[in-house]
Amino acid sequence: MEYVDRLHSAISRCNSPAMVGFDPRLEHLPEPFRSKAEESAVAAAAALIEYHRILIDILTNKVAVIKPQSAFFERLGHHGILALADTCSYAKERGLLVLMDAKRGDIGSTSEAYADTFLGGGFKNAFPACDALTVNPYLGVDACEPFLEYAKKNNAGLYFLVKTSNPGAVSFQNHGDPTLAEVVAKQVSLWSSENMGSASWSNIGAVVGATRPAELANFRGLMPSTPLLLPGFGFQGGTVEGLGRAFDSNGHGAVINSSRGILFAHQREDLSYLSNWEDKTAHAVEEMVEQLSVFAKK
Amino acid sequence: MEYVDRLHSAISRCNSPAMVGFDPRLEHLPEPFRSKAEESAVAAAAALIEYHRILIDILTNKVAVIKPQSAFFERLGHHGILALADTCSYAKERGLLVLMDAKRGDIGSTSEAYADTFLGGGFKNAFPACDALTVNPYLGVDACEPFLEYAKKNNAGLYFLVKTSNPGAVSFQNHGDPTLAEVVAKQVSLWSSENMGSASWSNIGAVVGATRPAELANFRGLMPSTPLLLPGFGFQGGTVEGLGRAFDSNGHGAVINSSRGILFAHQREDLSYLSNWEDKTAHAVEEMVEQLSVFAKK
Repeated sequence: MEYVDRLHSAISRCNSPAMVGFDPRLEHLPEPFRSKAEESAVAAAAALIEYHRILIDILTNKVAVIKPQSAFFERLGHHGILALADTCSYAKERGLLVLMDAKRGDIGSTSEAYADTFLGGGFKNAFPACDALTVNPYLGVDACEPFLEYAKKNNAGLYFLVKTSNPGAVSFQNHGDPTLAEVVAKQVSLWSSENMGSASWSNIGAVVGATRPAELANFRGLMPSTPLLLPGFGFQGGTVEGLGRAFDSNGHGAVINSSRGILFAHQREDLSYLSNWEDKTAHAVEEMVEQLSVFAKK
Repeated sequence: MEYVDRLHSAISRCNSPAMVGFDPRLEHLPEPFRSKAEESAVAAAAALIEYHRILIDILTNKVAVIKPQSAFFERLGHHGILALADTCSYAKERGLLVLMDAKRGDIGSTSEAYADTFLGGGFKNAFPACDALTVNPYLGVDACEPFLEYAKKNNAGLYFLVKTSNPGAVSFQNHGDPTLAEVVAKQVSLWSSENMGSASWSNIGAVVGATRPAELANFRGLMPSTPLLLPGFGFQGGTVEGLGRAFDSNGHGAVINSSRGILFAHQREDLSYLSNWEDKTAHAVEEMVEQLSVFAKK
């Protein structure tokens, strides 16, 4: 089944477009994982494997997709890649989709090597094939093509960076008129139209960190069949009202990421009546799913 | 010592700005490594470790800097990262500088995690600290700042992608007037001026894949103190005449990369009189060093 169809089927089942980002900052892990991780890179990787398996169990059947952030695993060297592979494999085993947030981008056969790593299983299945990957388009149209070919071959998805959510995104992405982000959006929309799923949505998506509703509406207009990754819920300032126009009446067309809202739930004072991190996290997941279910019920 | 001073001292010692890219495509390894690598990802990683150590011995005292391409190692999962770490460590041990070609780019603490991985030794020295790193600027000025901070803290270098050498680079990098690449170049030049070494060159560099002399001259003018990484020698079409204006009269200010010219030397028909891959590779290295020594002698 095409990526976007698997995604929308999972979103419908969970009745929410919520996605959870796995950005493991070691100093913010719940205990006992934080203390264990302090010892060494090996211990930190082992702690992440254990922690993420429990977290994935909490998310199973509640959230459609997780988004591991490669950088935080890479910090642990090869031990971290082993942990990342375990997290991806276990999530897939439990029926969650895995969108790898690695923001890769290079040229020719190097782009092909990245695409193979994250979407094709790497060399002799050295790394689990993920459902989708984030890609940085700076290097140009031909540099993106190997990713598109791999996505097609593996029924996988891509999310090209179009407009990111950081304040400084304007420095380059807003350059020119039309802006660079708009030019990239038009190119992504063309790729989307060439890689459609069974309904009106494509396997080829875009990261749009628009916090203003008018901006999001503009990008939705430029990319009518492109599923969006909205990195803006919770800590990054996105609101439910602002995000509505990314979705169709089936609640399809976008996923909304929360990382800290879930990963930092164990630190919440207002949940101190709950006795352990698992219960606090499960509570935060339910809150998020419930808040975002408004899009599924349009 | 600052990165750019270490680099220029090594370039002066070798009398050549040649850099060798380590882009290990398994199907192009010399025998017996190619056959060994076919077995499994573990075997491939072991083959790369052995092959690269011999290659580094051949390059020692001949070439100032090597540029491992992370993608080809990542294809081997965590085994590949172990091989990449070994290659970096061994090169440093032999006195070569290591410029990691990972083209990372993200926002805030995620950029920080990437910078820490490649320039700061990662978590508890999980990965060898490299001398320099390539960075993708698409996400914007604030997204690049954590890389700059880490570079400063570790006396390391950065090479921001400004203009890449692929034909499709024009699609986004030439957008607007001034072009996006020119806008990025001006920003990089500002960062360069804030991070100078002991002479007239900065630790903050740029990738400029200009194949036309006038284009290279334009970028050199926009970034007068920025060391350039020129990815264009040999297979990618750069010529000695075109590249001259990147250098000052000391032969400083740029490195010129060759990957396939060295890595594929064992396949050269015209070197069949040499009996093994080591001799063919050493011959190709000497050729390259000699050809590029023209810049050191200006």
